[in-house]
Amino acid sequence: MNRFAGPPSCGTLILLRHGQSEANAAGVFGGWADFRLSPRGEEQAADAARLIADAGLWPDAVHTSLLHRSIRTAQIVADGLDRSWTPVRRTWRLNERQYGALTGQSKRKTRQDAGADLYERWRRSLHAVPPPLSEDRLALLRADPRYAALPGEAIPPVESFADLLARVKPYWSDVLAPGLARGATLLVAAHGNSLRALVTLLDRLGEPAVRALNIPTAEPLVYRLDPGLRPLSPGGSYLAPERAHAAAAAVAAEGHT
Amino acid sequence: MNRFAGPPSCGTLILLRHGQSEANAAGVFGGWADFRLSPRGEEQAADAARLIADAGLWPDAVHTSLLHRSIRTAQIVADGLDRSWTPVRRTWRLNERQYGALTGQSKRKTRQDAGADLYERWRRSLHAVPPPLSEDRLALLRADPRYAALPGEAIPPVESFADLLARVKPYWSDVLAPGLARGATLLVAAHGNSLRALVTLLDRLGEPAVRALNIPTAEPLVYRLDPGLRPLSPGGSYLAPERAHAAAAAVAAEGHT
Repeated sequence: MNRFAGPPSCGTLILLRHGQSEANAAGVFGGWADFRLSPRGEEQAADAARLIADAGLWPDAVHTSLLHRSIRTAQIVADGLDRSWTPVRRTWRLNERQYGALTGQSKRKTRQDAGADLYERWRRSLHAVPPPLSEDRLALLRADPRYAALPGEAIPPVESFADLLARVKPYWSDVLAPGLARGATLLVAAHGNSLRALVTLLDRLGEPAVRALNIPTAEPLVYRLDPGLRPLSPGGSYLAPERAHAAAAAVAAEGHT
Repeated sequence: MNRFAGPPSCGTLILLRHGQSEANAAGVFGGWADFRLSPRGEEQAADAARLIADAGLWPDAVHTSLLHRSIRTAQIVADGLDRSWTPVRRTWRLNERQYGALTGQSKRKTRQDAGADLYERWRRSLHAVPPPLSEDRLALLRADPRYAALPGEAIPPVESFADLLARVKPYWSDVLAPGLARGATLLVAAHGNSLRALVTLLDRLGEPAVRALNIPTAEPLVYRLDPGLRPLSPGGSYLAPERAHAAAAAVAAEGHT
């Protein structure tokens, strides 16, 4: 290997959206609802572990949301690496975007009812927000013991992508970035939108690029970072690029047919 | 409920030995070798979760060793409680006793070769030590990435029960006790001997009682503690006491037939 090939690498960040969930399989918005992995999602997670091992990447720590589909994906990956002992930290800050009243609703029907333009803005613009969770559903969510340590107002009735970005950012700056700056390899097993937020921060994306960004399930996306925590390759590198790009296009088209 | 029924309870500690491992099923010493749960062990762990839920116990945090059989047991229990998000901390201090050259050896054959008296002292006395791990096996263990953050000498070639007690004690005093003093409910998913060490500390046992102490697989043992962290009931309470006491007697008799 050419030792003049590029700037020195600092940390390595592996972004991994959970495997297919029951919500993904049914074509509904998952949001903060605690859908589990489908059988196919479990297989995808095991396959992701093989890709990560084949790339010689060994996470020093794993970070997940508080939702089962990301927790279970991380467990399957760590087990597939024969490293179930890898330290894990879980946080509501990596939860999926709070989709409000869309949670559990069919993407196809939402697109039909709201129209293609509004549907697309709800899903991919920076500031559009769908209708909020009902008071009843919000009260139930705030009573969930997994959020018991949070002030109630931390649990929003709905989030724009910009709101989500603001929620994810402190975890990036306070937890992930310091680990990466020490040279660690970190695995973040999370969700389509919380990972879009991390990519937005890493690649310093503006709105047009944010809108075009889609993260497929269970496709490891690797960022090698320079000492200033800038990506050596903007956009990172999928470990199975052809399959990942095809799957990302399918994510973009969700709800269209 | 009688509000004069007893002293105020402080924290609650649930001790849980992993479900049956492949080593248990084969009748061999597991030690620090990374045996997985047997299919029966996975079922036992799910059953332990039902007992814990039926008792209305909801762990605020889970502690495990760095060995797969305790990690997986804890995952199955947390998932069975529908709380896979429960924070988990893993430590080499809760690993099984380092059984040295006995690791992976048949208990029955060891008893035949060493004789009943020495076999029993190796298994249950405070200070007897079996032969150490070979240099080769010790070097392999010290190269295991799960112990990379430890100084090599922390990984012993063999341990007496007293050595194990000294290893477990700082985790009790520095991690578990402070959480319990704050009133937390903690689940410790660990091993026959590291749990015997915790019981020895909790119940302030001397050698005769230590020798007679046997912890069955996957039987939740609950200690409610007073504000001075003394057990309200010495010896704690098994959630399925009859089955647990029968299983403990079977553990005592391992290797006899």
